[in-house]
Amino acid sequence: MEKTKVAIIGASGYTGLELVKLLVSHPYFEIAYVGTSEGGVKLTNLHPSLVGVIEQDVLKSDAKEIAKVAKLAFLALPHQAAMGFAKELLALGVKVVDLSADYRLGVEAYEKHYCEHVDKENLKHAVYGLPEIFRQEIKNAQLVANPGCYPTASILAILPFLKYIKEDAPIFIDAKSGVSGAGKKLSESAHFVNVNENITAYNPLKHRHSPEITEKLQNASGKKLEVNFVPHLLPITRGMLISAYLVLDEDIDASAVLKDFYQNEKFVRVRNTPVNVKTTAGTNFCDVFVAQNGRSVFVSSSIDNLLRGASSQAVVNANLMCGYEETAGIPVIAYVP
Amino acid sequence: MEKTKVAIIGASGYTGLELVKLLVSHPYFEIAYVGTSEGGVKLTNLHPSLVGVIEQDVLKSDAKEIAKVAKLAFLALPHQAAMGFAKELLALGVKVVDLSADYRLGVEAYEKHYCEHVDKENLKHAVYGLPEIFRQEIKNAQLVANPGCYPTASILAILPFLKYIKEDAPIFIDAKSGVSGAGKKLSESAHFVNVNENITAYNPLKHRHSPEITEKLQNASGKKLEVNFVPHLLPITRGMLISAYLVLDEDIDASAVLKDFYQNEKFVRVRNTPVNVKTTAGTNFCDVFVAQNGRSVFVSSSIDNLLRGASSQAVVNANLMCGYEETAGIPVIAYVP
Amino acid sequence: MEKTKVAIIGASGYTGLELVKLLVSHPYFEIAYVGTSEGGVKLTNLHPSLVGVIEQDVLKSDAKEIAKVAKLAFLALPHQAAMGFAKELLALGVKVVDLSADYRLGVEAYEKHYCEHVDKENLKHAVYGLPEIFRQEIKNAQLVANPGCYPTASILAILPFLKYIKEDAPIFIDAKSGVSGAGKKLSESAHFVNVNENITAYNPLKHRHSPEITEKLQNASGKKLEVNFVPHLLPITRGMLISAYLVLDEDIDASAVLKDFYQNEKFVRVRNTPVNVKTTAGTNFCDVFVAQNGRSVFVSSSIDNLLRGASSQAVVNANLMCGYEETAGIPVIAYVP
Amino acid sequence: MEKTKVAIIGASGYTGLELVKLLVSHPYFEIAYVGTSEGGVKLTNLHPSLVGVIEQDVLKSDAKEIAKVAKLAFLALPHQAAMGFAKELLALGVKVVDLSADYRLGVEAYEKHYCEHVDKENLKHAVYGLPEIFRQEIKNAQLVANPGCYPTASILAILPFLKYIKEDAPIFIDAKSGVSGAGKKLSESAHFVNVNENITAYNPLKHRHSPEITEKLQNASGKKLEVNFVPHLLPITRGMLISAYLVLDEDIDASAVLKDFYQNEKFVRVRNTPVNVKTTAGTNFCDVFVAQNGRSVFVSSSIDNLLRGASSQAVVNANLMCGYEETAGIPVIAYVP
Repeated sequence: MEKTKVAIIGASGYTGLELVKLLVSHPYFEIAYVGTSEGGVKLTNLHPSLVGVIEQDVLKSDAKEIAKVAKLAFLALPHQAAMGFAKELLALGVKVVDLSADYRLGVEAYEKHYCEHVDKENLKHAVYGLPEIFRQEIKNAQLVANPGCYPTASILAILPFLKYIKEDAPIFIDAKSGVSGAGKKLSESAHFVNVNENITAYNPLKHRHSPEITEKLQNASGKKLEVNFVPHLLPITRGMLISAYLVLDEDIDASAVLKDFYQNEKFVRVRNTPVNVKTTAGTNFCDVFVAQNGRSVFVSSSIDNLLRGASSQAVVNANLMCGYEETAGIPVIAYVP
Repeated sequence: MEKTKVAIIGASGYTGLELVKLLVSHPYFEIAYVGTSEGGVKLTNLHPSLVGVIEQDVLKSDAKEIAKVAKLAFLALPHQAAMGFAKELLALGVKVVDLSADYRLGVEAYEKHYCEHVDKENLKHAVYGLPEIFRQEIKNAQLVANPGCYPTASILAILPFLKYIKEDAPIFIDAKSGVSGAGKKLSESAHFVNVNENITAYNPLKHRHSPEITEKLQNASGKKLEVNFVPHLLPITRGMLISAYLVLDEDIDASAVLKDFYQNEKFVRVRNTPVNVKTTAGTNFCDVFVAQNGRSVFVSSSIDNLLRGASSQAVVNANLMCGYEETAGIPVIAYVP
Repeated sequence: MEKTKVAIIGASGYTGLELVKLLVSHPYFEIAYVGTSEGGVKLTNLHPSLVGVIEQDVLKSDAKEIAKVAKLAFLALPHQAAMGFAKELLALGVKVVDLSADYRLGVEAYEKHYCEHVDKENLKHAVYGLPEIFRQEIKNAQLVANPGCYPTASILAILPFLKYIKEDAPIFIDAKSGVSGAGKKLSESAHFVNVNENITAYNPLKHRHSPEITEKLQNASGKKLEVNFVPHLLPITRGMLISAYLVLDEDIDASAVLKDFYQNEKFVRVRNTPVNVKTTAGTNFCDVFVAQNGRSVFVSSSIDNLLRGASSQAVVNANLMCGYEETAGIPVIAYVP
Repeated sequence: MEKTKVAIIGASGYTGLELVKLLVSHPYFEIAYVGTSEGGVKLTNLHPSLVGVIEQDVLKSDAKEIAKVAKLAFLALPHQAAMGFAKELLALGVKVVDLSADYRLGVEAYEKHYCEHVDKENLKHAVYGLPEIFRQEIKNAQLVANPGCYPTASILAILPFLKYIKEDAPIFIDAKSGVSGAGKKLSESAHFVNVNENITAYNPLKHRHSPEITEKLQNASGKKLEVNFVPHLLPITRGMLISAYLVLDEDIDASAVLKDFYQNEKFVRVRNTPVNVKTTAGTNFCDVFVAQNGRSVFVSSSIDNLLRGASSQAVVNANLMCGYEETAGIPVIAYVP
């Protein structure tokens, strides 16, 4: 069977690297084009770990050239850059999985938290790429907005309890992320000396992933929910842990509800003991655990922020969009130990 | 001026070591006795970092011998062991700062969460050693129950908001601690490979520090509060961060309330940006920060779990019990960087 | 094509886990038997990260049962236990890749550094499983002694320079290993608080891998070399870096010699900048770099201690022993970032 | 007794911060001036951990103003900037402890490895501030060149063996440093994701501290020694470990030689087990350990790179220059655990 040719645009960052790592051995996809804003280097110059694995020229990204060789493109670009590029590609008939924030929100919320939206037309048809909610829609989508890492883990933790949540009680999400989530850019907050032996909250109650979580939970529940989101930076490279605190308005067995909800999902594992980030690092799994004190609930989820929180979820979406089985080429074996 | 002679009982663990480090250069206290359950070694055998700093024999702890040489004893013993020893020392006229849980709770709560209490008489008169609440009582105490690390940081974060808290809304405390909080004992959960590049909740909603926090907050507020406490283990050695989530029942300026509440406290620093654990590690400071979303509040505190959460707070209490200024010999200079 | 059935004996440790992870998706091998000394559990109980990946009962290891279902066995057992088991399996016609030290040394050296050898007969025919030296012999072997992690990385670094080394100048090997190399066992030296923010040498000039390195280098060179080996414990989980210091007795271009030596090896990458452990972690690669100051040489190598230093090298050996291509199912994609 | 007023120039970096931390509670020195190249801030803005510890304005450094208020100045400036400033201060009668490289080397070596020297006159009289070699000279010095961290630890390790070293056998120094040694500057090599779970050599055989070590060892021994220096970057914040490899030309008991050599030194501790960096972090101690294999010697030393490798050694030098006891205000209590 001939493989489907794909492009990776924005190959210099961590999520771009992860896409390469996933696609180089994918059973149905073939990397046909790798681009960055500059181009003119070899992929092994950008990522020396790929020496002996793949030889590939990195080109200056050009939508027309991509359309000639690829049926689907992964965009691992900053927000704002992504929508300009996606618009062009879609017009040329290339399917797009966009890893940026550009197509994740309604236009109003987007423009409030990011910037003016320049591709409102495609935004209308974009599908939010969380298969546990939108599997069918993704299958038919031309454009999938791949969710952020914080929203992926938060929504998967809270989703099973949405219909039991007390509407006027605020939801609190205490999120903890590894440093790779902030990308390769040099910054005070990524300097080893500042991160090591440390932990701090950042942008508490103000992070841009907060409206994404709120919008999706409201849409899924039909309830007007208040979501209070506080991310923390952990002294680890990979991994994300969500500790969500909920108040219910009826008596349920939270553990049974959780197990029941995810019984048919291959990439969500319900755990009987508190989840940790090592057990999912390297995989597309989301592990979930719940404990309760009457109607007060602690639900915790763990994902690999670069995989389930970005690149492997993007490949899952691409699998669905191209009619392949959802699990094809998706990593399930953790790095542990 | 002659120094007051003190004993350190339980010198082999981390908090025992911290007591030695604080007292070896204290202006008013002199280490007169160092004991462990075994004795028969030199202090530098237990703690090789003390070579060239202090020469001291470690004795098999004996209350009568202690009473001969010391006016005050610090007990850095496991719970249950501590109360037997404290009882003896108090009967011999030795003041006691107990770092264990044995005198922190009312008898009922203690026996529910720990074991039978064998010194109910002294328990009645024990003072909870959090100077920001019980400064005056500590000055007159013979026996001070030094607070746990989680309760110290949690209570100091929540205390300023107690009177504004909505009584029927649960409090959620998401706590994060370095590994030294679990002591020197070998365990799966302290094995480097399990901790490094990882984070997990443990004993969620069931940790033994939870009733201590609840009791103190209820007593201080006169309100019947529900406290949901979830500790997490961080891949760091020292430090503790508390992220507490509260719902208020009136509109306040949380930041102003916080600053006002602690304006005269020397060991609490109110911060304008989210607190981190490096800035307090090595000191007796508790740093606190607050942010709010209407009546939903995020308040975060940071302490050194072994110092403000144990040993330096114990020395503060000893200072007060002996009529010295509270700040004498108390560390304020962080290890940072 | 039917897959070759294999057994993994000693599945509870880290190298056992890595074997499972490699073999679960191997193109030519199939896991037919997983054993430990106890048995009676599920593999996912031993390694919770395998939930959703493989369902497998773990049996109490029994050579006769293994021989019924498997053609080849991987022994991830402690030394001494391994040779008893290997002897039985070989007698039953099962090929063995032994990851312990039991068949790596000549009998004299073995008995000096370990214990009495109880399988001297098979020891004579055991092949040392370093493909870069013994590829042909491995292809015909019934029993392969998989090299230790320190010897693998040290030998691969020094091998290209053996014929230029000054015979009477001692070789110094400064080795640095992640904590996983010491296994899962609880110990002071694996306690997080002792490892984190720390580094120390251990068993300097006395480590048991030293005679293994010496013997192989002497055999390969025909020179009587003095090897001084000093391992250090790093505050990382995975990875090993070797810094070897050599004195040459002729003028060579060390960099050219190195490149030339490994030009046809797929699993050794010669680097132009100093190697690091992240670039090989997760793979079977050994990265090597050399710098020189006249006849004084610094040569450095990096491997994943659990893969190239144990389990993936074991699978390479199994590939060769069974007539498969050397690279089949062998990981080349690093965990980085 | 009136305190001696001192200035700290270059207060924004890590060594500047350490100087403040040491001098704020020094028994004989008083901070009279704190300067940076910009000035115009409060010290607590530069270092938030100092809130509640010291209130001090940071000024734009001006030699004349410094001379008005301070008898001695600590220069924590980059090389090149330091010598211009030192020259001015010395002309104004201010004693100088310079933490940069500007006065550490002979003029020829300096200009080869750094840049043109603009203060050759003072360079002639500068004393190298390693008290274990130059204690008497330091006492009479106006200008002390405070040694680099790598040279301090390397020289103290090798010094006791200098007269036994085989002259034509190269010395190999395998050095490992925490990230704080590279300062606060943002760089790829200090990005958390690149450092964490990693180790690499950098500038092998080419680091600028190499000529400093060579010059001092040659001068102290009168031998023409070849020093091969290879630094490695560790995933820790603080601490430095030196593993030096020597060949002797006579049979000695290396351990006895080491103990004898340092028997009267207060800040060097000879250890019977391999040294580690946690036991010296936070102190001015240098811990040393030696092992030997005949005439091949492994000697290892550990220091806090920011203290014994910079700021506390600078204060020791200032103590000596001002006639105070060497140990006054010098930290001996390690951060451990």
